[in-house]
Amino acid sequence: MNELNIKGIEAKKASYLLSQLSSIDKNKGLKAVANALLINKDLILEANKIDIMNAEKNGIKGSLIDRLTLNSERIKSMSEGIEKIIQLDDPIGEVLSMKKRPNGLEIGQKVVPLGVIGIIYEARPNVTVDAFALCFKTGNAVILRGGKEAINSNLKIVEIIKEALESVDLPSNAVSLIEDTSRETAINMMKLNQYLDVLIPRGGAGLIQAVVNNSTVPVIETGVGNCHIYVDKEANINMAKDIVINAKTQRPGVCNACESLVIHEDIANDFLPIMCDELSKNNVDIVGDTRTRDIVKYVNEASEEDYGLEYLDYKISIKVVNNIDEAIAHINKYNTKHSEAIITENYSNAKRFMNEIDAAAVYVNASTRFTDGYEFGFGAEIGISTQKLHARGPMGLKELTTTKYIIYGNGQIRK
Amino acid sequence: MNELNIKGIEAKKASYLLSQLSSIDKNKGLKAVANALLINKDLILEANKIDIMNAEKNGIKGSLIDRLTLNSERIKSMSEGIEKIIQLDDPIGEVLSMKKRPNGLEIGQKVVPLGVIGIIYEARPNVTVDAFALCFKTGNAVILRGGKEAINSNLKIVEIIKEALESVDLPSNAVSLIEDTSRETAINMMKLNQYLDVLIPRGGAGLIQAVVNNSTVPVIETGVGNCHIYVDKEANINMAKDIVINAKTQRPGVCNACESLVIHEDIANDFLPIMCDELSKNNVDIVGDTRTRDIVKYVNEASEEDYGLEYLDYKISIKVVNNIDEAIAHINKYNTKHSEAIITENYSNAKRFMNEIDAAAVYVNASTRFTDGYEFGFGAEIGISTQKLHARGPMGLKELTTTKYIIYGNGQIRK
Repeated sequence: MNELNIKGIEAKKASYLLSQLSSIDKNKGLKAVANALLINKDLILEANKIDIMNAEKNGIKGSLIDRLTLNSERIKSMSEGIEKIIQLDDPIGEVLSMKKRPNGLEIGQKVVPLGVIGIIYEARPNVTVDAFALCFKTGNAVILRGGKEAINSNLKIVEIIKEALESVDLPSNAVSLIEDTSRETAINMMKLNQYLDVLIPRGGAGLIQAVVNNSTVPVIETGVGNCHIYVDKEANINMAKDIVINAKTQRPGVCNACESLVIHEDIANDFLPIMCDELSKNNVDIVGDTRTRDIVKYVNEASEEDYGLEYLDYKISIKVVNNIDEAIAHINKYNTKHSEAIITENYSNAKRFMNEIDAAAVYVNASTRFTDGYEFGFGAEIGISTQKLHARGPMGLKELTTTKYIIYGNGQIRK
Repeated sequence: MNELNIKGIEAKKASYLLSQLSSIDKNKGLKAVANALLINKDLILEANKIDIMNAEKNGIKGSLIDRLTLNSERIKSMSEGIEKIIQLDDPIGEVLSMKKRPNGLEIGQKVVPLGVIGIIYEARPNVTVDAFALCFKTGNAVILRGGKEAINSNLKIVEIIKEALESVDLPSNAVSLIEDTSRETAINMMKLNQYLDVLIPRGGAGLIQAVVNNSTVPVIETGVGNCHIYVDKEANINMAKDIVINAKTQRPGVCNACESLVIHEDIANDFLPIMCDELSKNNVDIVGDTRTRDIVKYVNEASEEDYGLEYLDYKISIKVVNNIDEAIAHINKYNTKHSEAIITENYSNAKRFMNEIDAAAVYVNASTRFTDGYEFGFGAEIGISTQKLHARGPMGLKELTTTKYIIYGNGQIRK
């Protein structure tokens, strides 16, 4: 039997045990892991050093090596992340509703774990800890498949987690790591319907697309954000400027950063010169349509393609529109259903934008950067779903659960 | 451009209009369709007659022809089905929660349509009306791909629906039917991620498996039910007998019918002879393990395979177990996560069974036949989900919706 099947069977078995654990026991396990990471810090750093050496040897680029690199501070922060998850409420076991039917059956809907969750991710070893902790807190077993660059770090971290769970008599098969990091095994994992209840990819657009295209296991698609800010004709110009600068430059490499501006023609003459100057001061490269370039001469020409791009960089596209209808149509055409904002003082336009834009999060007069589990008050985040099934927007603990119907009878049969 | 892309674009466009309709307008559209079906009854029957003639010519078997066949009564019942959907509450637009964050942002979660729903189904033309009505009520556009056997009936029905919607100035692209019923086009529809937000297969195990294996569009898996009844040692024998007979024989061809009995050894001697006699009287073919056959001689031998089968027929398998642990393990191994029941008067065993069985619906002392949107009080049903993402168990109107986060600010930027 191959690695996937062995680990699938073990995880499925563990998931039944995990689903029955009390919150106290789950928190005891998490606490043991949080401590073990600190105690075994040097072992993790040693394994991580091998990964870094290999990466350098293979000529891997600096930003990836940065994501791969662990140090005392980062390990401490991984451990603290677990402590925070311990503090959160356990969603499992809540009965969301219970109603009595005319025939006397009492039918309720109860929150239960998903079962076995597969996570496919790239080079960040902190995801190993984070994904385990979120799944464990919600009574799920997790099968991890990290990037090959981080294999030594991940192996060591998973070994430490397993030992910590065993030390407090909890099932160590709550977590497992696929050691074979070949692409073929990843593809096979995407078809492991017998054991996996859901698959969550965490990484760049390429990884997510590969999972969506190949998986027969139900997937929660996360990530890609081509986010717009629409500056309406009745916008407060200062507020619009501050929000755009924040959404574009506070952290340009993340999915909730703003990639494109849409400007009402009535405010374009007043707003665009101020906005473009501020963007330029912040080293943002600007491309725009003809109407933008008529107003601000130094803006470069935007291609049709530009409006569909998630730059993840100091670059922004601008389009001037005749009215809010055109703004809404443009955004619904080019966006990736992530986060969209309108800046306006007009009630009806705010209402229309909120209603008609098709996205996970729609804002009036605030930065798109707030689309985040922590900022939404969930206390945790496993990713940001850009699909519509199951979860949409930031996913916290609740999104790692499902429900089952529980029905109490006293002999009812169907007529 | 091919049919799928043309209809995909039209449906996506219509979905934006539908998402903004009031409940009054949606009910007006449904009412127009309900009337039009009655008025145009003869046209539908004429088209249906061609399908039936073709089916007979192609030697298609009787049960399939029965499902395909329409008559005045069935068309009336389709129309009445729409009237019932009109009476149901519209779930769209409800804000499930709205909280104020420390920074003043007010964050709410609002119920919205899924967008464009694809339905792939087999030879029953009533699904055409039913699926349209449920999707329309929830503000979704629907693209239908029915079986080739029903193509003439479906074409006529969809034409009538479209005309009825147009007659009350509502978007007729709310519904479309894929006219090319080739397998190739079905497979391409399963990969129409650009336009389809979700795909729901309705039909037999083969169709569902084909959709799960080929679809890159998120799927809601419906259907297959290998349902068990566990008769615990402290069961009321009469209640157990009545429930088993109901669950097995009231309608054996449906997914919530019982396919397998699991019996505690302490009750087997008293219960099995009575139960097997009653099953035999009801023409149910019985297969069982050695322990069952030691007690009831005329029971045939069950193969390992039998325990995994959804017979959908007058046949049942029986297994005797040592204790509830073995019962739970057996059911979790062989079930299809649909509906499972325990018959017991013992509190702790009932509690364990409810907690530890992994299924969409778990019963104490009632027939598995109640797993159904109407019996659960939803007033409608689009199918029974056996997956864990998004919807689990019977799906009503609520399960055809998603949410979006709505965020009201006054200039907030992220620190």
